[in-house]
Amino acid sequence: MAIEAVDRYNARLTKLVFPRRLAGRVLRMIRVAILGASGYSALELIKLLLRHQEVEITALTTRRAEPRPLGEVHPVLAGRLDLNLEDLAPDQVAERADAVFRCLPHGTTAAAVSGLLPAGKRVIDLSADYRLKDADEYRQWYGLEHPDPDRLDEAVYGLAELYRAQIKGARLVANPGCYPTSAILALAPLLKAGAISTDGILIDSKSGVTGAGREPKRHLHFPECNESVAAYGVGDHRHMPEIDQVLTDVARHEVRVIFTPHLIPMDRGILATCYAQPVRELSTAAALAILKEFYAAEPFVRVSESLPNTKQVAGTNFCDMTARAVRGRIVVISAIDNLVKGASGAAVQNFNLMYGFPETTALT
Amino acid sequence: MAIEAVDRYNARLTKLVFPRRLAGRVLRMIRVAILGASGYSALELIKLLLRHQEVEITALTTRRAEPRPLGEVHPVLAGRLDLNLEDLAPDQVAERADAVFRCLPHGTTAAAVSGLLPAGKRVIDLSADYRLKDADEYRQWYGLEHPDPDRLDEAVYGLAELYRAQIKGARLVANPGCYPTSAILALAPLLKAGAISTDGILIDSKSGVTGAGREPKRHLHFPECNESVAAYGVGDHRHMPEIDQVLTDVARHEVRVIFTPHLIPMDRGILATCYAQPVRELSTAAALAILKEFYAAEPFVRVSESLPNTKQVAGTNFCDMTARAVRGRIVVISAIDNLVKGASGAAVQNFNLMYGFPETTALT
Amino acid sequence: MAIEAVDRYNARLTKLVFPRRLAGRVLRMIRVAILGASGYSALELIKLLLRHQEVEITALTTRRAEPRPLGEVHPVLAGRLDLNLEDLAPDQVAERADAVFRCLPHGTTAAAVSGLLPAGKRVIDLSADYRLKDADEYRQWYGLEHPDPDRLDEAVYGLAELYRAQIKGARLVANPGCYPTSAILALAPLLKAGAISTDGILIDSKSGVTGAGREPKRHLHFPECNESVAAYGVGDHRHMPEIDQVLTDVARHEVRVIFTPHLIPMDRGILATCYAQPVRELSTAAALAILKEFYAAEPFVRVSESLPNTKQVAGTNFCDMTARAVRGRIVVISAIDNLVKGASGAAVQNFNLMYGFPETTALT
Amino acid sequence: MAIEAVDRYNARLTKLVFPRRLAGRVLRMIRVAILGASGYSALELIKLLLRHQEVEITALTTRRAEPRPLGEVHPVLAGRLDLNLEDLAPDQVAERADAVFRCLPHGTTAAAVSGLLPAGKRVIDLSADYRLKDADEYRQWYGLEHPDPDRLDEAVYGLAELYRAQIKGARLVANPGCYPTSAILALAPLLKAGAISTDGILIDSKSGVTGAGREPKRHLHFPECNESVAAYGVGDHRHMPEIDQVLTDVARHEVRVIFTPHLIPMDRGILATCYAQPVRELSTAAALAILKEFYAAEPFVRVSESLPNTKQVAGTNFCDMTARAVRGRIVVISAIDNLVKGASGAAVQNFNLMYGFPETTALT
Repeated sequence: MAIEAVDRYNARLTKLVFPRRLAGRVLRMIRVAILGASGYSALELIKLLLRHQEVEITALTTRRAEPRPLGEVHPVLAGRLDLNLEDLAPDQVAERADAVFRCLPHGTTAAAVSGLLPAGKRVIDLSADYRLKDADEYRQWYGLEHPDPDRLDEAVYGLAELYRAQIKGARLVANPGCYPTSAILALAPLLKAGAISTDGILIDSKSGVTGAGREPKRHLHFPECNESVAAYGVGDHRHMPEIDQVLTDVARHEVRVIFTPHLIPMDRGILATCYAQPVRELSTAAALAILKEFYAAEPFVRVSESLPNTKQVAGTNFCDMTARAVRGRIVVISAIDNLVKGASGAAVQNFNLMYGFPETTALT
Repeated sequence: MAIEAVDRYNARLTKLVFPRRLAGRVLRMIRVAILGASGYSALELIKLLLRHQEVEITALTTRRAEPRPLGEVHPVLAGRLDLNLEDLAPDQVAERADAVFRCLPHGTTAAAVSGLLPAGKRVIDLSADYRLKDADEYRQWYGLEHPDPDRLDEAVYGLAELYRAQIKGARLVANPGCYPTSAILALAPLLKAGAISTDGILIDSKSGVTGAGREPKRHLHFPECNESVAAYGVGDHRHMPEIDQVLTDVARHEVRVIFTPHLIPMDRGILATCYAQPVRELSTAAALAILKEFYAAEPFVRVSESLPNTKQVAGTNFCDMTARAVRGRIVVISAIDNLVKGASGAAVQNFNLMYGFPETTALT
Repeated sequence: MAIEAVDRYNARLTKLVFPRRLAGRVLRMIRVAILGASGYSALELIKLLLRHQEVEITALTTRRAEPRPLGEVHPVLAGRLDLNLEDLAPDQVAERADAVFRCLPHGTTAAAVSGLLPAGKRVIDLSADYRLKDADEYRQWYGLEHPDPDRLDEAVYGLAELYRAQIKGARLVANPGCYPTSAILALAPLLKAGAISTDGILIDSKSGVTGAGREPKRHLHFPECNESVAAYGVGDHRHMPEIDQVLTDVARHEVRVIFTPHLIPMDRGILATCYAQPVRELSTAAALAILKEFYAAEPFVRVSESLPNTKQVAGTNFCDMTARAVRGRIVVISAIDNLVKGASGAAVQNFNLMYGFPETTALT
Repeated sequence: MAIEAVDRYNARLTKLVFPRRLAGRVLRMIRVAILGASGYSALELIKLLLRHQEVEITALTTRRAEPRPLGEVHPVLAGRLDLNLEDLAPDQVAERADAVFRCLPHGTTAAAVSGLLPAGKRVIDLSADYRLKDADEYRQWYGLEHPDPDRLDEAVYGLAELYRAQIKGARLVANPGCYPTSAILALAPLLKAGAISTDGILIDSKSGVTGAGREPKRHLHFPECNESVAAYGVGDHRHMPEIDQVLTDVARHEVRVIFTPHLIPMDRGILATCYAQPVRELSTAAALAILKEFYAAEPFVRVSESLPNTKQVAGTNFCDMTARAVRGRIVVISAIDNLVKGASGAAVQNFNLMYGFPETTALT
């Protein structure tokens, strides 16, 4: 395959010419493990990492006792990676991998992480376990004691556009939720600029069905959710406090949003329609200018005058957005692919930052 | 067919027993014309009227010169009604029909209506022409001079839940827009009760693609809008002033909403997520109580504790809704079928009121 | 509601004028029970029966111990019928109902039916239990002993277009499978006319996802089957022997078809593309003529020169079809709604025949 | 971006170490033009080529007079490639590019190609113009005189699995149609092995809507084709003679297939269900063995015991297939992404072969 060809070619070059450093950059293979490899975000992650020339996927885990070939769990990957999903203990993972991506459900973190960090591994956690900084709040929203409260301080919220510097040095990254990513990117620049009020922010989000996971459920059964749209988790979705926390940090003033997610009959994509009250008059042009300036150097945020749709970001790590002044309010609309920028793409972006690769590696 | 069988049976009965009045109700056939019969709302209207035992569809019009059989324009109706779509002049329509449904685009009204009303016909206009009461506002939002400003006063806004009495006596009914129907039904009870502020109302609506009509367009081409969601008409959709006008009338105080429509990859259905500021503290239970009381006697509004989806109203004339208090706001969520309660079902409901039939005839 | 109004009016008339017979037809209410009321075919059946003026639904059953309101199980029916789903024994059903529709899985029949028929009830079985005439074949394809082999002879295959006379007098009707309905209707006229060979018939069918039932399963999870098409049950689908049996009966010569079903990402509809070898040269026109003549008097089969799609029959009891001669073969393509003509609509059609109602009652 | 980083790094290496040849392979940038860049196959092609490290896209053409930025025509590519779509003459294209991909409709070829080949350019034509070898047959199926009959002999049919050697040396490649690719790959091994009869082959294909292009049309309007399935082009689809020609070449005996395409409500994917008569008894295992052996060395064909679906190949250049013996017939079912293996992926595969790159470059 192309990647192998290039790898062989790079490997040969490396040996022939500059054994370990080349063009100012270390040439190496990072060994990667993915914990919980049977779901949609893991699938997306594997697809992306297969394009990463300096990554070798060495372990895939599952809770099932007997090993299953990756191509059986994810037929799209048949023939792409000859690896089984196995029920591995943390120390087995630690032996095989340098970097660990956790795609497991929340509440299952402690054991994994506590075994890995001391062994010098770095962890990118796609679950919600290390996102909320306050163990009490975690208990309130997730209904259980936090499994590893002592590391909440250390964990870095993995939204590169806001916390790039911290991510670079992090051992433990809490990869953001999909809804928070789209909403925070839309609102952070205006809050940071002091252009909108911290009060009365409304986020009305629309998500494709992969956001709800791969486990069959009645309301996700095709004939139930196809040709239908519904709100859910009104007022009690766990991504609400996550959005609050990050926007509060950005605004340096308490933010408590109203957040309403909706299920849309499509595979992937999130559209966040965000409503805010300007602090003083703010035109469409002025709002766009703030967004454009904020994201001028960002490789994955595209600010435009046009209204975005989710299809134009599907399969990409982009967040597309625009802003409009409407009757004295500001409406910011952002679109992401929930599985890429909203999960696995962001995870790879964080990985690249942590390991010193160009940030966009394997993401374009 | 069943209907014919029953009709024959009714006809026979009528002759035998009570020639003109029976069980306190006049037995008769209303002759109905549908102007602009090739679109989706006309199709839905015909389907409904075919179930109406006292309606005979006698004319279907089109702008095309040559007549086309109905079953060719709408294959689903093949064999159901042996009638051509024809390019008929208003006086030809007047000759054939007692009641006229207009499914034509806005701006094409004057000739039709002005020929029909004086001839004693009654008109239900599914276009936007008679919805806005103010010809200036019409000019501003629709970009043309109103074709028939003198009848704006006479026209009755055809939302039975608010204007039932006026509809009964109307010669000219302005059938409501689909977005306005879902939003107004959600908000009117709380405004009428003085429970929510007239300021700062936000309506975030999600609609299926039939709402955009049957004319092929790039953004409605299957591979463009399938698997995608997008906002459109942000701040300038023509249904915004329509919602303003009716809610202002209901509240007896000016209302100016922020309205954001979205296109959802499904055939039919509208979900309106409406956000309002309570005047004083308002619990979920209290908000639901207001809605339930307001709609207690309504045959087509179902208030429930559960979050509605559009599938549960698809193909019906129901508007399902619920309310939730979230962090000091009230969120009211309503669902309708845009082609039924949002267009043709409401039109039949209005027709039933105007002609003294039970309101639910042909609608269940 | 309209129906109630008409019923009251009919009831009043009946009392006033001709107490029991009117216009040559008995006026009455048939009490109906639906066994297994939580699935999609039951939902469709209830919707249809609610339009039937001489039907009263009196019992809905479920395997769950505690009763659940119909509107909770099927939100679309909230407020339409005030009845619980209950775990009723056969004798309780027999007490409440005259006619019984079984929407239960195969293999669960015996008890129900054996309690009902002797009590004078008539049963329309939407499961597969009484379709195959041969208990051995049943064992082979369904993997269990037939629960009630003695009644296989009595049961009538409920395809009105082929077995109308028998259905009228039947106590026990085996309602056809959805795939068989579309394929048999397409092929029977040509076989009966001796126009095509009984050898080498190929049926390539495409079905919407409701055909697979309401139980959540991995391959029916929205993100698994959306945006995908797949064959399944290749060579071993249980509808294959059912098609064989009926076509063999029609052709009076053994027919063994190759049948390949496919899952299509849509809610409802079946398209059957059937390929056959003409016995002697057969033009498109000649094939169409055979179909048109065969179905000339049928209220629910529409033969046309145009290629049908499933949308034009969605929500109707129609089977639309056409034929084409292609390179010496005959291709017959038929479309039905799998839940209506392929299940509940056919069941109501059978019910009408059994009870002497006009065949199209509640179906148009 | 990652690619740029790697390119810079490669460029630097190249200069420092082995100026023109490295690791046995020439390092270079092929300048590429895409004619007709506004459609879906062009979009897919650009996405793939952006991953190709030795390709520089230098020209994109359109028939519109005024240049339009690529990111406006294909919003998903905004910020990825800073190039306008322009109305360029063949000599302007020749100046800018070494290799030319034609994504234009059939019948528009001659001028383009005749200007390019003599100038030493190599052309991959995604239209149908050079697929049929016989100008008479072209006239019959495409309804026009062939614009460039003299080059029909030279053109190579670009299906790598069958014509790899010829493609390598070709100046002009006729990229295969999407339906032919899936059907030919399914049937060629069994024909070549003499395992199935050349008579009576039936191909029942199901395609997503992108296969019909990006031009809005009534039957591709979302609410027309969504939730519907239909056959089209029965007996007269232009891909039928293309399949005939290639299978005849493979079998060295005339093949005339029955081919029925269907439109499926999904964006992309083709499933081909192919039916053939074995020459002598052929089990499922034996048929699979023939397929597996034939494709043992192929990087993009995956033969499996499992039934494929189109989702498992979406976005990839794979063709997945299986075979089953059913009642004496062989059913081969293959799945491809119509835009990748069925169009642009195959084009890149051909490009790689023509220019000596590893065949899988930019395709995994």
